[in-house]
Amino acid sequence: MSDHDVIGIGNAIVDIIARCDDDVLTKLNLPKGNMQLISAEEADRLYNGMGPAVEISGGSAANTCAGIAALGGKSSFIGSVKDDQFGKVFHHDLNAIGVTFNTGFATGDTPTARCLVFVTPDGERTMNTYLGACAELGPEDLDEDMIRGAKISYLEGYLFDPPRAKEAFMKTAAIAKQAGNRVALTLSDAFCVERHREDFLNFIRRDVDILFANEDEIKALYQVDQFEDAADNARHDVELAALTQGIDGSFIIHGNAATAVPSFRVESVMDTTGAGDLFAAGFLYGFTQGKSLDICGSLGALAAAEVISHIGARPEANLIEISKANNLL
Amino acid sequence: MSDHDVIGIGNAIVDIIARCDDDVLTKLNLPKGNMQLISAEEADRLYNGMGPAVEISGGSAANTCAGIAALGGKSSFIGSVKDDQFGKVFHHDLNAIGVTFNTGFATGDTPTARCLVFVTPDGERTMNTYLGACAELGPEDLDEDMIRGAKISYLEGYLFDPPRAKEAFMKTAAIAKQAGNRVALTLSDAFCVERHREDFLNFIRRDVDILFANEDEIKALYQVDQFEDAADNARHDVELAALTQGIDGSFIIHGNAATAVPSFRVESVMDTTGAGDLFAAGFLYGFTQGKSLDICGSLGALAAAEVISHIGARPEANLIEISKANNLL
Repeated sequence: MSDHDVIGIGNAIVDIIARCDDDVLTKLNLPKGNMQLISAEEADRLYNGMGPAVEISGGSAANTCAGIAALGGKSSFIGSVKDDQFGKVFHHDLNAIGVTFNTGFATGDTPTARCLVFVTPDGERTMNTYLGACAELGPEDLDEDMIRGAKISYLEGYLFDPPRAKEAFMKTAAIAKQAGNRVALTLSDAFCVERHREDFLNFIRRDVDILFANEDEIKALYQVDQFEDAADNARHDVELAALTQGIDGSFIIHGNAATAVPSFRVESVMDTTGAGDLFAAGFLYGFTQGKSLDICGSLGALAAAEVISHIGARPEANLIEISKANNLL
Repeated sequence: MSDHDVIGIGNAIVDIIARCDDDVLTKLNLPKGNMQLISAEEADRLYNGMGPAVEISGGSAANTCAGIAALGGKSSFIGSVKDDQFGKVFHHDLNAIGVTFNTGFATGDTPTARCLVFVTPDGERTMNTYLGACAELGPEDLDEDMIRGAKISYLEGYLFDPPRAKEAFMKTAAIAKQAGNRVALTLSDAFCVERHREDFLNFIRRDVDILFANEDEIKALYQVDQFEDAADNARHDVELAALTQGIDGSFIIHGNAATAVPSFRVESVMDTTGAGDLFAAGFLYGFTQGKSLDICGSLGALAAAEVISHIGARPEANLIEISKANNLL
């Protein structure tokens, strides 16, 4: 019997989110739409150039775990924060939404990670992450029983950046496989794929059952220009690939089959932060409940639509009610 | 020549805001709609009972200063934060919106103040403030030249709670009066009035030129049941009283005259936190620009309407554009 539907492991981050015009990105020399890793000094420089902001708990896999809990699923999270104010905020917000999170506080000198998110009027987010205490996550932080007790271990590609976190990532996958559980991976970001392509490919071919990626990421992984070619490659590497194309919806690749799932209409896109994370949340929740792949994809689309309709990467509305209203639960 | 239109002095607070149903207030034994002062231990207890939250800079007078800056005015702020993460957030957000804020960091052991704000589905907010480093504000923190250089010194009634801050408050008023500047006061909260009624009355009669209060506060001050009776009392005590009645608008009392100003229509009230603070911002900005009292009141109503249409007590929209579109600037 599984204790949790999904256990997520990822960078534990508080988002600092401000709206800005495109010229602010130009002035600060920020690559629009991407996630870049920055030093503490660079974080201070960018923060000085940022307008009034709000602080909201984030982190890719953590957002996914929050979404699963919001849908009524049982999820747990492993990640590293310091016991500073942001660390306590991160802890509180995960626990408060119902995610089991009991990784001990990091003991080093670096503060809890923060991501400076600049949101332009088109809703696109540009992310700048100072990893801080995330770099302290290591294999010793893993709760092995909790990993064994989860139907799916969900790994965030960003974890390949801090070296010891990558070890924890690999060990998590090994424990999950040994327990007969599934391993899911999100590629996180096209630049993250560029940084770690070979390692990702080896890991995917060996250990991954369910792969999440958007169009840019999957094309970067297989170094192809066409989405269809990338999807064909994925077909041979994993049991299930959920490939998203923003407003054009998603393709769920399963053996020789491909299921196209439309996106949900959003009145006004406020902030795309967390869209992929919440797609994964909806999909994985549906999957652990034994739903058909098109329902899984629609649950993902619905959760993604909710999260891009407001500032912040965690659900605000009642996802269970909206899902029921759309006959998905 | 004045350097600033308005200098504000107040508690420097980061708001931790979460939506909740009314039964959460009942369970946590919270008096709906009020602000109560809480200990660090009580703050932990309430935070444990709070759902996922967002952190946004707040503080009554600080919100007013932010609103004045957002309208194009020149404002400065005096208040006490520690150099912890919340303190840096508070500093950043005021500076980023254009408010001059250079009070040194508090050196004691207590962290930056935080206010746990529970927002119910009707948009009403229930506030629980742990004052932390605010209690360290004292007369020695005042920038006397900056006070002399501001047309109006705006004082928040909440400052009567921490004893040394009250000293700073009184000294600010004395400096402002001596320089021939105006002193404005907001009563802040009906319970705050109950705690300090006699001191407020003495201070108002001696030093206050412009008084801000909502209906509950002004009735509590004069211990009368009827708004009209309270307004008549205020008429004799101050040059100008801007008395708000929520959706029913405001009354600007000036000598024997009373100007009724309607509220602005808000499609959906999300969070009333900051409504009074932003009314004061609009009013004071108009006043320092020499606008007529009905325009001052309308600028207040407009700024208040903007801030209650979203979570958080500082403006998000472009107040200058909205004011121009409404022929107020």
